[in-house]
This record gives sequence, C-alpha cells and structure tokens, in this order.
Amino acid sequence: MDNNLQTPYELAFDVRDYECDLQGIVNNANYQHYYEHARHQYLLGKKIDFAALHEIGIDLIVSRVEIDYKYSLRSGDQFKVTVRTRREGHLRLIFEQDIYLLPENKLVSHAKVIGVGISKGRPIKLDAIQGVDSLF
Amino acid sequence: MDNNLQTPYELAFDVRDYECDLQGIVNNANYQHYYEHARHQYLLGKKIDFAALHEIGIDLIVSRVEIDYKYSLRSGDQFKVTVRTRREGHLRLIFEQDIYLLPENKLVSHAKVIGVGISKGRPIKLDAIQGVDSLF
Amino acid sequence: MDNNLQTPYELAFDVRDYECDLQGIVNNANYQHYYEHARHQYLLGKKIDFAALHEIGIDLIVSRVEIDYKYSLRSGDQFKVTVRTRREGHLRLIFEQDIYLLPENKLVSHAKVIGVGISKGRPIKLDAIQGVDSLF
Amino acid sequence: MDNNLQTPYELAFDVRDYECDLQGIVNNANYQHYYEHARHQYLLGKKIDFAALHEIGIDLIVSRVEIDYKYSLRSGDQFKVTVRTRREGHLRLIFEQDIYLLPENKLVSHAKVIGVGISKGRPIKLDAIQGVDSLF
Repeated sequence: MDNNLQTPYELAFDVRDYECDLQGIVNNANYQHYYEHARHQYLLGKKIDFAALHEIGIDLIVSRVEIDYKYSLRSGDQFKVTVRTRREGHLRLIFEQDIYLLPENKLVSHAKVIGVGISKGRPIKLDAIQGVDSLF
Repeated sequence: MDNNLQTPYELAFDVRDYECDLQGIVNNANYQHYYEHARHQYLLGKKIDFAALHEIGIDLIVSRVEIDYKYSLRSGDQFKVTVRTRREGHLRLIFEQDIYLLPENKLVSHAKVIGVGISKGRPIKLDAIQGVDSLF
Repeated sequence: MDNNLQTPYELAFDVRDYECDLQGIVNNANYQHYYEHARHQYLLGKKIDFAALHEIGIDLIVSRVEIDYKYSLRSGDQFKVTVRTRREGHLRLIFEQDIYLLPENKLVSHAKVIGVGISKGRPIKLDAIQGVDSLF
Repeated sequence: MDNNLQTPYELAFDVRDYECDLQGIVNNANYQHYYEHARHQYLLGKKIDFAALHEIGIDLIVSRVEIDYKYSLRSGDQFKVTVRTRREGHLRLIFEQDIYLLPENKLVSHAKVIGVGISKGRPIKLDAIQGVDSLF
C-alpha cells in the first residue's frame, strides 16, 4: 500500500495555558508531548497499549525525533495532530506527524519519529509485537 | 525531639525558563515539582529510595498538599527548598517545606505535604517502611 | 444565590501517558495542571481571558491551593474536572474543584484554590476585573 | 576558529523523579527541557538573556530539532549537558549538544538544534542580536 495515500489518524487538542512559556507561545518540548499523546491514542485504537506492553516487558521507545517548527501555537489555539506510520526494515517503526492550527488547517509543525521495540535491553522485531502488523 | 528545632534539609535550584508561563512567572504546578524533588533527594540521603520502594511494591504517595504562594519566582532566579518531617499517628508522614529566594532568603512559598505508604492498595504503617524511623 | 446549588462547569480529559510517573500513576503536580486548565476554560467561557488580562497588566494569580488526593488516575483513564466559584471578601475568588473518574463518576481528588487579581504588584478588587461579576 | 576544537560549555543535572514516565525512564520530551536549560544558561553566561530579549521584542526561537536517544536516563542518575555553537549563514544559530551519564561519561543523547531570532514576526540577522558575536 502506498503510505502517502493512507488517510492519517487525527486527534484534536486545545492549547493549555500552562504549556505556554514566557514568550507567550507553547514551549517547544510540549510539541513532543502532543506528538506522543497522538501516537499513543492512535496505537490504542489499534489495540497496541503502550502501558500494557510495558507490563509484559516490552517497551516501545523513541530512538530519534526530527521536529520542524513552522508557526507558534498560542493560548486559546485549537489544533490537530496527525499520525501516519510506515516500517523501515524489521526493527524501525516510522511515524510521520503534523500539527495543524484549526480551523484553518495551517501547518504548524512536522515531525518524523523513529520508534523501536525493546525487550530485556535489546531491540526486537516489529513482527514480535502483537498488533503492529495492523499498522501497515 | 522538638521538630521545630530540627535543622531543615536544603536543596538549591535555578529557575528554568520552560518552567515560566505566559505571565513570565514560574507556573504554580512547578512549585509542586520543586517540593517533590527536594523531598525525594532528602529521602534518598536517608536511604529511602522512592523508585526502589516502588520496585518492591511499596508506593509513597501524597494524600494532601497545602501550598501558599507568597511571592513569584521568575526567570533567572535562584532559590532553595527546605524539608522538615514529622509523623502524625502511625500512618501519616508530614513534610513542612519552604521555598526561599536566594541570596536574600525571602520567603516565596510554604507547603504542608501529607504522605502515606501504600502496599497492595492499602495504607501501611510508617514503621513498616525501611529507613523511615531515621527521619524523626 | 446559594452556591452549593450552582451546577458546576465540567471539562472532560484523557490521561496522557507522559503525565504518569514511574509509579504508573499521574504525578501529583499534573492534577494542578488539570485544575488550572479547567479554571481557564471556565473563565474563557465567561469572557475572562487569563492571557488577555495579562496583556493589559492584570494577572490572576493563585495565592493558595489545597488538594486532596483520594484515588490515583492511571494511563488510559478518562475523567472530568469541575469548577464552582464563590467570592470571599472583596479580593479573593474561591474555586472549589473536583476530579471524577469516568464513566463511574468516582471522586478522585478535590481542590480548593484561592485566586487574587494583581496589578502593578498589588491586589485589586475583584469588581475591577471585567467580567468577574458574571461568575456569581 | 575551528568549532570542533571549541571546549563545550557543560551543565550538570540530577534526574528528578517526576521527569520519569511509567516505563521508569525519563520521558523523551524532558530531554528537550534539559537541552533548552543548558542552552539558556550558556547564553546567560555570554550575557544573552532569553527573557530580557523577549522584553525588547526579540524572540530567540527554535526552528528545528533533531534528537538521537541512545541510552535511557533513570531515577537517581546524574548527567551533564554540553553546548557547542556555530552559525550557518546570516540567520541560523546551530547548537550541537550532548548528554552524558555521570560519572562514566557514557553518551546518552545527541541533539542538533537550529535557532533563529525573530522580531515583529520576521527573522533577523544574528549580528543584530547583542552579544551573539561572542558565541563564535
């Protein structure tokens, strides 16, 4: 399947004032929180539970993030975070994510996040993680 | 021992800019982070390890906090957080904590934090938690 | 008006995994974030804009919080935060807030938050803050 | 000057327990907080004050981050964050940063952070920001 044609998962958010810093804009690190929450909700919808996997000894961890900040979110803003997934080799799960200001759908930020599954300190094949095949 | 005569534990901090919100002052919730970090470092010094206790099934949790905000911390400020402890009955560990702006030692905030030990969902006696007797 | 009869404002939330700490439960300080976000959304609905007030030199600040933690929120939980307001004298705005686990409406936490308006470093009467009279 | 020969700025940190998530490791977004705090302290030492610049209408913002996560920080860990700077063209200030676990100096994470100065919504030349020339 051509992943670019995949309709992305979307999750809507409101900016919370405590997420804004002294410049009056959302602090950069909070975008990573937004991206993470959208990924986890997306995975939950696919029956992949980040917290439950941890309980059975499998941790999904992030090995690399690249985030472009194109526009600053501010107090009162509403926005959506999208999630698209693809695999790279046997080990790497790639998330391509965007944040769009609502309602005008202005692009605010883009992220590429690389995830891997870890068990007992070692990477495990994506196929060994129950439910991952449903992502592609 | 008269607890009021106890010399309190002290830990120094710098305000980090991401802790400030759009009013240019440290967000209220971050004071709770400062108080928590000072408590945990204090407990570690007494060989009571919050994370290690969790591993053996005992969680130290906060059942109530009261925080007075008297002055606002800002970007660039240095401050110290103090910790004094006392027990209340068999179950409750009371932390009296202050934050002082440095170097002038101006009182910024006071907190009273009530902690209890929980194991398998139930409160346990303080005496059953290794090292707690060294706090008094 | 008898404030206890006031129907409270309610706002629904999902726990976000990054809000949970190494005990697997939502960190105490994050409850303060939840309470703050619910208050600000409530005030916005009353046309009282925390960020806009800051722009004209009035800061709504918290002078005291009391929070009881009765039950721990966990990954995957949904909950609602309520807001009730009353005044105390000319200067103090009291927020009584609760958090309930959904869908069973189990009480998770209660907070009493005392707010005051500050302008040029001094407390100002609540009546001097546009829109505050609509809260009562 | 060959920037690779520059001795980097270093700042030591302790992991704070609230920074750890339910996997027992520091949440990814908190690394961005560590990197930011080290950058701001470094800049302050060079008399470039992030908060003071905001007051005069100049915001230093991050336009892109790339972060590699090689090892996970845990409760109780001590670590240092380094900062090296270089310029790229007239507008872009590049920070190369590392996190090392202490005392063994094990590499935990690397980040490349691209900063730009913004005034009235537009990028400004680095040379127009007082003190920036002292970075190179």
